[in-house]
Amino acid sequence: MNIKRPTLLINEAVARKNIARMANKAKSSGVELVPHFKTPQSIQIGQWYKDEGIISITVSSVSMAKYFQQGGWENITIAFPLNIQEIDDVSELANKTNLTLLVNEPGQVEVLKSNVSTVTDVVIEVDCGSKRSGVDPGDHEVIQRMIDLLENSPHQFKGFYSHFGHTYNARSKEEILGVFKASLEILHALKERFSDYGPQLSIGDTPSASILDKFESVKSIHAGNFVFYDLMQVQIGACDEQDIAVVLACPVVSKNHKRNEVVVYGGGVHLSKESMFDRELNTTIYGKPVRITATGWSEYIPGSYVKSLSQEHGIIHLNDEAYESFNVGDTIGILPVHSCMTADSMREYIDLKGDKFDHL
Amino acid sequence: MNIKRPTLLINEAVARKNIARMANKAKSSGVELVPHFKTPQSIQIGQWYKDEGIISITVSSVSMAKYFQQGGWENITIAFPLNIQEIDDVSELANKTNLTLLVNEPGQVEVLKSNVSTVTDVVIEVDCGSKRSGVDPGDHEVIQRMIDLLENSPHQFKGFYSHFGHTYNARSKEEILGVFKASLEILHALKERFSDYGPQLSIGDTPSASILDKFESVKSIHAGNFVFYDLMQVQIGACDEQDIAVVLACPVVSKNHKRNEVVVYGGGVHLSKESMFDRELNTTIYGKPVRITATGWSEYIPGSYVKSLSQEHGIIHLNDEAYESFNVGDTIGILPVHSCMTADSMREYIDLKGDKFDHL
Repeated sequence: MNIKRPTLLINEAVARKNIARMANKAKSSGVELVPHFKTPQSIQIGQWYKDEGIISITVSSVSMAKYFQQGGWENITIAFPLNIQEIDDVSELANKTNLTLLVNEPGQVEVLKSNVSTVTDVVIEVDCGSKRSGVDPGDHEVIQRMIDLLENSPHQFKGFYSHFGHTYNARSKEEILGVFKASLEILHALKERFSDYGPQLSIGDTPSASILDKFESVKSIHAGNFVFYDLMQVQIGACDEQDIAVVLACPVVSKNHKRNEVVVYGGGVHLSKESMFDRELNTTIYGKPVRITATGWSEYIPGSYVKSLSQEHGIIHLNDEAYESFNVGDTIGILPVHSCMTADSMREYIDLKGDKFDHL
Repeated sequence: MNIKRPTLLINEAVARKNIARMANKAKSSGVELVPHFKTPQSIQIGQWYKDEGIISITVSSVSMAKYFQQGGWENITIAFPLNIQEIDDVSELANKTNLTLLVNEPGQVEVLKSNVSTVTDVVIEVDCGSKRSGVDPGDHEVIQRMIDLLENSPHQFKGFYSHFGHTYNARSKEEILGVFKASLEILHALKERFSDYGPQLSIGDTPSASILDKFESVKSIHAGNFVFYDLMQVQIGACDEQDIAVVLACPVVSKNHKRNEVVVYGGGVHLSKESMFDRELNTTIYGKPVRITATGWSEYIPGSYVKSLSQEHGIIHLNDEAYESFNVGDTIGILPVHSCMTADSMREYIDLKGDKFDHL
């Protein structure tokens, strides 16, 4: 397979397997899977989730919620702090779909109360250690204030939501498990403290969702990345290399025999500038090269990696044998460090038969 | 000014001043400015260059060349190794505009010769130390082979092109100058070695173009970033903070008083994941916050920086006073680390009057 320009290939079978695995696990452990669609951002790929019985989804912006509402989804959680500047759009959306909103400040609840008359479900975002956003779990007074405001509004307080983003610092299943347990204890304490309101617990990260089999008292899981996975998730210990469902196919445009490097058409605007320190290769990488095959793509090419990216150029270091095997004009695949960012940069997928799939 | 969603603001006056400064310098030093449009990627902003007498431009892909050909540009250099997979598109474009193509392998020249009958100008890309792409300047045999192939084709060998990308490692004007001189010496040696063919010299980086007043024997300069500049260029020593012409305006969506941080709607998909180690702040940053004002934006907010980015979240650390002054719903500006990447992520500009400008 030779392609003209950087192309994001999706292996439907692998993605469907990833979805099915997570959906089955959720069913068997009695939690609801409300997958985060910030990863695929695709109406067509959304159908693969429907085929597994998924009826509710998560998004990270009001724009994304609109996209999926128009695509026919009727239960949408916007897992991003309520942006009061978009309150009119939220109000309009609330008339069209069942919205769950996320708040972490009383001010947001006041704006919601004053501007949105259609009933929405509301969860309070809690920071269990990821240090991104969310109310401090020790700040009971602020939490109580938000609950009180909601109780005196048409909107319904549903419980606590937390993204255990600090699982991304883990480098083994044991470390993920440790972060998960400590974080869940924090949520349990809140559930108990505010038991009068019957709060439910919702969590969101792919590493925990991937390695756990039981979610104890959790009501719903909102992971997203698991549909595609990527090199970061392999390094964290959340998946195997074979679970990665997307690859950026790039034309080789030149070679440098002194450095065993090929230059590809495929740079930061295609793959995103996401990088990671690879422990095995002992260097910072922007992706790993694979060979495109008739049925998908190969395993990693050993000792090879994307060394640097500029706007449209990618520089790939290859082992001797691989270097010799690629010629100018050939196609080489790059497994992304962070598939959500690569998909967002590319804004379109092509499956292995050559069919296109939408991206917001 | 309050905005609903992440918005890329452009200060037209600053951008026009940046263009005029570079165009005037080129005129007075007798080189041709062939600005790289991979930075603005905009037909409308292209007009600002035309107003300064610019008639030829540089792009980094065949797609971009098509965009600007359709936008009326008649002299386009594709400063990216000729991608033989797109040779049919190149051939079509050659019929519509005056193309200059860049090659660094004899194989590319052979494909060009066999597939493109309309005359194009061709430059040979030389790697003067940036280690990205380009023929090794000591590899006279390969260079001769490419020249010979061109001499026996309808296409015209015009000279040598080099992107002195290693000026980006500089951290002062003196260091930039050192890299420039060493690199230009390499090109001079080639010009002499292949003097029979009257080669012209073309160079491309913004740091050199910004600090030099004379370009010696250079025929054309192809810098791009100078139209917007960014934090990286300030740190390199290529411009001042006041020269930065774009800022990402973001709504504040929550605050964390324990960490003096605000969370904004504005993440890696808006700003790009480009980061840099800031020497003054002694930390890795993804941007610097400014206040949006009636006439543009303020200077840096002291001791403040974008600490991390996820897909849609930006976490900004602010000094005490600034932290207190921003409320949820307010707008905060972020100066980008790398403006080309931010513009490419946003794909639209809004000027200070609220008018939209296109981006490919």
